[in-house]
Amino acid sequence: MSDTPSPKFLGQNSPLPSSPEEAALDYVPNPREGSLYLVRFAAPEFTSLCPVTGQPDFAHLVIDYAPEKTIVESKSLKLFLGSFRNHCGFHEDVTVGIGQRLVEEMQPRWLRIGGYWYPRGGIPIDVFWQSGTPPEGLWVPDQGVQSYRGRG
Amino acid sequence: MSDTPSPKFLGQNSPLPSSPEEAALDYVPNPREGSLYLVRFAAPEFTSLCPVTGQPDFAHLVIDYAPEKTIVESKSLKLFLGSFRNHCGFHEDVTVGIGQRLVEEMQPRWLRIGGYWYPRGGIPIDVFWQSGTPPEGLWVPDQGVQSYRGRG
Amino acid sequence: MSDTPSPKFLGQNSPLPSSPEEAALDYVPNPREGSLYLVRFAAPEFTSLCPVTGQPDFAHLVIDYAPEKTIVESKSLKLFLGSFRNHCGFHEDVTVGIGQRLVEEMQPRWLRIGGYWYPRGGIPIDVFWQSGTPPEGLWVPDQGVQSYRGRG
Amino acid sequence: MSDTPSPKFLGQNSPLPSSPEEAALDYVPNPREGSLYLVRFAAPEFTSLCPVTGQPDFAHLVIDYAPEKTIVESKSLKLFLGSFRNHCGFHEDVTVGIGQRLVEEMQPRWLRIGGYWYPRGGIPIDVFWQSGTPPEGLWVPDQGVQSYRGRG
Amino acid sequence: MSDTPSPKFLGQNSPLPSSPEEAALDYVPNPREGSLYLVRFAAPEFTSLCPVTGQPDFAHLVIDYAPEKTIVESKSLKLFLGSFRNHCGFHEDVTVGIGQRLVEEMQPRWLRIGGYWYPRGGIPIDVFWQSGTPPEGLWVPDQGVQSYRGRG
Amino acid sequence: MSDTPSPKFLGQNSPLPSSPEEAALDYVPNPREGSLYLVRFAAPEFTSLCPVTGQPDFAHLVIDYAPEKTIVESKSLKLFLGSFRNHCGFHEDVTVGIGQRLVEEMQPRWLRIGGYWYPRGGIPIDVFWQSGTPPEGLWVPDQGVQSYRGRG
Amino acid sequence: MSDTPSPKFLGQNSPLPSSPEEAALDYVPNPREGSLYLVRFAAPEFTSLCPVTGQPDFAHLVIDYAPEKTIVESKSLKLFLGSFRNHCGFHEDVTVGIGQRLVEEMQPRWLRIGGYWYPRGGIPIDVFWQSGTPPEGLWVPDQGVQSYRGRG
Amino acid sequence: MSDTPSPKFLGQNSPLPSSPEEAALDYVPNPREGSLYLVRFAAPEFTSLCPVTGQPDFAHLVIDYAPEKTIVESKSLKLFLGSFRNHCGFHEDVTVGIGQRLVEEMQPRWLRIGGYWYPRGGIPIDVFWQSGTPPEGLWVPDQGVQSYRGRG
Amino acid sequence: MSDTPSPKFLGQNSPLPSSPEEAALDYVPNPREGSLYLVRFAAPEFTSLCPVTGQPDFAHLVIDYAPEKTIVESKSLKLFLGSFRNHCGFHEDVTVGIGQRLVEEMQPRWLRIGGYWYPRGGIPIDVFWQSGTPPEGLWVPDQGVQSYRGRG
Amino acid sequence: MSDTPSPKFLGQNSPLPSSPEEAALDYVPNPREGSLYLVRFAAPEFTSLCPVTGQPDFAHLVIDYAPEKTIVESKSLKLFLGSFRNHCGFHEDVTVGIGQRLVEEMQPRWLRIGGYWYPRGGIPIDVFWQSGTPPEGLWVPDQGVQSYRGRG
Ligand SMILES: [Ca+2]
Ligand SMILES: [Ca+2]
Ligand SMILES: [Ca+2]
Ligand SMILES: [Ca+2]
Ligand SMILES: [Ca+2]
Ligand SMILES: [Ca+2]
Ligand SMILES: [Ca+2]
Ligand SMILES: [Ca+2]
Ligand SMILES: [Ca+2]
Ligand SMILES: [Ca+2]
Ligand SMILES: [Ca+2]
Ligand SMILES: [Ca+2]
Ligand SMILES: [Ca+2]
Ligand SMILES: [Ca+2]
Ligand SMILES: [Ca+2]
Ligand SMILES: [Ca+2]
Repeated sequence: MSDTPSPKFLGQNSPLPSSPEEAALDYVPNPREGSLYLVRFAAPEFTSLCPVTGQPDFAHLVIDYAPEKTIVESKSLKLFLGSFRNHCGFHEDVTVGIGQRLVEEMQPRWLRIGGYWYPRGGIPIDVFWQSGTPPEGLWVPDQGVQSYRGRG
Repeated sequence: MSDTPSPKFLGQNSPLPSSPEEAALDYVPNPREGSLYLVRFAAPEFTSLCPVTGQPDFAHLVIDYAPEKTIVESKSLKLFLGSFRNHCGFHEDVTVGIGQRLVEEMQPRWLRIGGYWYPRGGIPIDVFWQSGTPPEGLWVPDQGVQSYRGRG
Repeated sequence: MSDTPSPKFLGQNSPLPSSPEEAALDYVPNPREGSLYLVRFAAPEFTSLCPVTGQPDFAHLVIDYAPEKTIVESKSLKLFLGSFRNHCGFHEDVTVGIGQRLVEEMQPRWLRIGGYWYPRGGIPIDVFWQSGTPPEGLWVPDQGVQSYRGRG
Repeated sequence: MSDTPSPKFLGQNSPLPSSPEEAALDYVPNPREGSLYLVRFAAPEFTSLCPVTGQPDFAHLVIDYAPEKTIVESKSLKLFLGSFRNHCGFHEDVTVGIGQRLVEEMQPRWLRIGGYWYPRGGIPIDVFWQSGTPPEGLWVPDQGVQSYRGRG
Repeated sequence: MSDTPSPKFLGQNSPLPSSPEEAALDYVPNPREGSLYLVRFAAPEFTSLCPVTGQPDFAHLVIDYAPEKTIVESKSLKLFLGSFRNHCGFHEDVTVGIGQRLVEEMQPRWLRIGGYWYPRGGIPIDVFWQSGTPPEGLWVPDQGVQSYRGRG
Repeated sequence: MSDTPSPKFLGQNSPLPSSPEEAALDYVPNPREGSLYLVRFAAPEFTSLCPVTGQPDFAHLVIDYAPEKTIVESKSLKLFLGSFRNHCGFHEDVTVGIGQRLVEEMQPRWLRIGGYWYPRGGIPIDVFWQSGTPPEGLWVPDQGVQSYRGRG
Repeated sequence: MSDTPSPKFLGQNSPLPSSPEEAALDYVPNPREGSLYLVRFAAPEFTSLCPVTGQPDFAHLVIDYAPEKTIVESKSLKLFLGSFRNHCGFHEDVTVGIGQRLVEEMQPRWLRIGGYWYPRGGIPIDVFWQSGTPPEGLWVPDQGVQSYRGRG
Repeated sequence: MSDTPSPKFLGQNSPLPSSPEEAALDYVPNPREGSLYLVRFAAPEFTSLCPVTGQPDFAHLVIDYAPEKTIVESKSLKLFLGSFRNHCGFHEDVTVGIGQRLVEEMQPRWLRIGGYWYPRGGIPIDVFWQSGTPPEGLWVPDQGVQSYRGRG
Repeated sequence: MSDTPSPKFLGQNSPLPSSPEEAALDYVPNPREGSLYLVRFAAPEFTSLCPVTGQPDFAHLVIDYAPEKTIVESKSLKLFLGSFRNHCGFHEDVTVGIGQRLVEEMQPRWLRIGGYWYPRGGIPIDVFWQSGTPPEGLWVPDQGVQSYRGRG
Repeated sequence: MSDTPSPKFLGQNSPLPSSPEEAALDYVPNPREGSLYLVRFAAPEFTSLCPVTGQPDFAHLVIDYAPEKTIVESKSLKLFLGSFRNHCGFHEDVTVGIGQRLVEEMQPRWLRIGGYWYPRGGIPIDVFWQSGTPPEGLWVPDQGVQSYRGRG
């Protein structure tokens, strides 16, 4: 198997970046380059701020991607997602924006993000974006996040 | 077994009462008077109005009682619950109030009501009231309404 | 262990009795007489008729009992429950009545019945009756029938 | 990312419109115009009236759409759905009608609505409509609303 | 939206038909004629008789269809399904037969029926029939009825 | 509808066959011949023996098929499955073998079998076989047997 | 029923307080004073900071209390919980501290708080505190938050 | 901690005993003698024969006990349970009999057995026995086996 | 609230101790000393070795305790549990031993441990120990770990 | 059916190999060669080490394959998976590497592996790889492993 890379954050203490702009994602060599496979991250600990009311919003995010040259190191992803803590944005904008930044920087074969937001006014919003039709031969299971049901 | 009573609403068309005050509950003879048993109604179709904002509120209600002389006919209960459609009240007030009206009118051996309200501001309220400690020897299973969990 | 009894219905073809009155329950010797234990039957295939509208009603029944001298043979129980197919009765009356007939005929140490009826007017009724407080030392797990939740 | 729009209702107090005709939906610029993505709203707090009996009906609605120029602001959607409170309509008509109004006004790339109605006569109705086959490359997860199961 | 039709059974008391042959289904104008959509009925309260042993059988039925000129009024469907109470038929025959009768009389664009029968001899039978491949562009979610699992 | 056939085992007492070779399956006329539909059997009560260690193995089997001229009578299927009680075979061999015997004898349009075996060494094996690609227009829902999860 | 109080935050826009010390909880008159009942809040949107690493922590909180003279208005509770966003504290300290502040200020008959924290190092911590044994006659259902299970 | 005992069956190949009488249970020293604790075995792979019809029966068994001098080695328990494969017995008799044999031979402080049998005639039987009221201070969680629900 | 202690492991890199004897647990001052509350750890990532066969065993552990002077820092607990990776022990011994070591070192008011082990020979073992009857007034919810069910 | 092969490990005691390199997988003749079918292994007991921190990692693995000439004997698979206990590797590398080794050695028609890893930093990683598009006519159900959800 491949050599061990030296991640920038994993195994060290790293402060939370103060905004998405200041957060640096760490991309390490794909240990199985040339293989078509999928990596899925589930991030149930996400929060940002509403641009109209300033109130906190919460989401459960799931990110799927098929790596090309690099994979994203998961501690840097955690710090990047944490950097939205004081960021203002609409659900649609934040969710699609996270997916598009990863695509631009990592240049994966393919990427998909699902944002499952907590209800406001009794109505939750989910946002689903992908960089295109999944590549032929890639196995992409359902994200399987449970639908919102209210009470009862 | 007992004779068949003649309910006031069951088997007939009845308009929705315009307020709880105008709704008449129908109490019929307890067909098993002298037996200590529990009747449970689950009413997932309940709505009233917020007294501060005027916006609709929704709840899933569960009512348990041990009958004495009468039982409440379920169609009249349905119409009574439907009569809250244009009624303004806080969650705590509406839930406990429904339980106390049934107790006052029906004089059961014992009664319990659980109100499981839909979230507002991301936080649902549940209200639990009973007329006293359950009578010795009465079997009262948990209401078993699933806890609210947000997303993920 | 005990000798094998000769049940009246098990292992033979038996027509459905036309009413509860015509149904005969078969009680066989308790193979563990003197032991305090619980027998639970779950009967999700139960139907009777509404005494007011004549429409079919459906229920899921669960019966728990602690045997004394005899146990009830399960095929005869099935035929007895099936005999309610053309019987008219209120939910409260039918449920408690089934429990009380078993108590009168079998004379168990203790018996409990839960009747979980399908919704009418959007509101299901559950009925819970027991012959008394469970005997000291008897193990009686929850019946664990899922609460009704409407949709969503 | 995009500038913050000024919604008509979000962050303000707004009375419930008295009918769907009087409700105004608020469409704001799509913050990710040009990206093919899906927005899902789950609305478990929906009620209207039966046109034959006048009795209240309840539904859990789920709306999926792929935006074009605009997105629908969620507080205005909440008010629009609340405006059906005194509206009479068949399940099929109300569900498809909500979807078609959104399509006509918002002109999204694509839209789908699922209406999961509470049981009447022991039988719930679900209604599923979409504006056409989903666009190539759009990711549309199952709505995943649990099937109705009666009791037991 | 469309005018309100006058159903034959809804809002009135109607006796249970004594056989499927005597049951009349009520078809009312499709309020959204020209729209391709799906209607789903879940009917967990179904019972018929075994043609060999005469014993009661129970099933949970789910019917999906895409209307053409008419929709089937749900109370008449309830009465039709109730009319199988004294009808003898094999699981396969009854399930497919209900689907085919609806197709012949209603002439929908498409129809599917799933019959989920209670276990006999420890083995349940499910029957799945459809009138053909679903029409292009129709959205047909899974029926999502839970698989039988025995105990444990 | 069709005439009632005379099954060989249903409605009679039948001893358990001592091996799969001695078990006779009973095929009765397809009551809906000419219709393309699916029959599903769930058989959670299956046991055979390990050919290496002689220890009992257990499985939950699900069989799906589209009938042609005949259907398999379910009591004969139960007896056939019971006849594996003293049969030695690997999981792969037993599962596929059951499917292939049914195909050879019944000549259905199509057949699929899923064998969900209990864990050995902490690892369960599932086996999935089908006679070919499902026929065009046949509706084949997922078998939906829950994945094994260990503990926690 | 009681008069409508004038809450300080409900129905108005209110900025998030910058710390728990700056947050003011709003206590309004108990609309059912004299009745012994329970109010439950579920707050799945809670976040604070780790006092050692400065990293964000997340929790799902459930608060149960039996009111005396006042009830806590839920929007003020939401703002109070939101004020922990930049607060540093151990799981045990934050959870018990929230409960004790509510007890000190509101003087309820009884209060209980459950804090269900997201895993760190693969191990979640739950914290359970109550102000004493629940009062005789108060009905306190289980909080029913699902146990953490890792994967599989 | 304690020395390692030498079990009779664990780590060796052992044929299945031909009857419960021939099965020998292996009791090894309690490694935590003097501590009051509970051991739970879940045995979902159990089968015996019906004494009336000779047909196979299946059960999911759960055994709880508080050890005194010895604990039962789990491979010997597996072989003992497997020895019922050709044993005829009623559900009540087999379940209670297994519990009583373990009590007689092992002399634990306390023991409980739950037998969850697969349905016959559409009705499953559960049997619950314990050797007495649980000892003061012993922690005995619910066995938590899901209730039988038929279909739907 | 209390001052922040300086944990020995949290916020630093720490190698896995090679055995339970070498692992040092870190006890920090109870930030809410004097309050009677419960701390629950769920540890689904536990593995040790079988003392007879040398094969790996896996368990899901849940530890509940009521602190006195100190609380156990969770990273040190994680390292302690990880130190069992090469330790040989029976399920009963390991589970109770972990509980007793924590009691001896930490001297809590009370402690309980549940060990939910993965199946061997098709039968999982659960072990439940507590240091005594829970203190009066302490709130101890069920651990709620799902029962083992085999397949189907 | 086929002759019984003589596996290298099944029915014997075998020590755990010290590394994946030293583990030998045992391939036995495919008992149903020529049939296109799928074998699924679920392995919830998997652990390896993090190459950066040296800390233990845990995963639930599911392997699906369509055999050609041989099948992999499950006890040898268990030993192979157990040999990763002291192996260091990234989640992506370990998961894809296990799949690729099986493909190279066994030369199946097709293979897929899903690795569902326990969370680190609150974020679990899932890895999905397959050797190519599934062969035409092979039935491959979803692996159905539940999505990670955090708490609540
Ligand atoms: Ca809300
Ligand atoms: Ca959550
Ligand atoms: Ca209804
Ligand atoms: Ca319980
Ligand atoms: Ca609901
Ligand atoms: Ca049912
Ligand atoms: Ca059965
Ligand atoms: Ca699906
Ligand atoms: Ca095992
Ligand atoms: Ca409880
Ligand atoms: Ca697990
Ligand atoms: Ca096993
Ligand atoms: Ca409980
Ligand atoms: Ca099972
Ligand atoms: Ca973690
Ligand atoms: Ca699927």
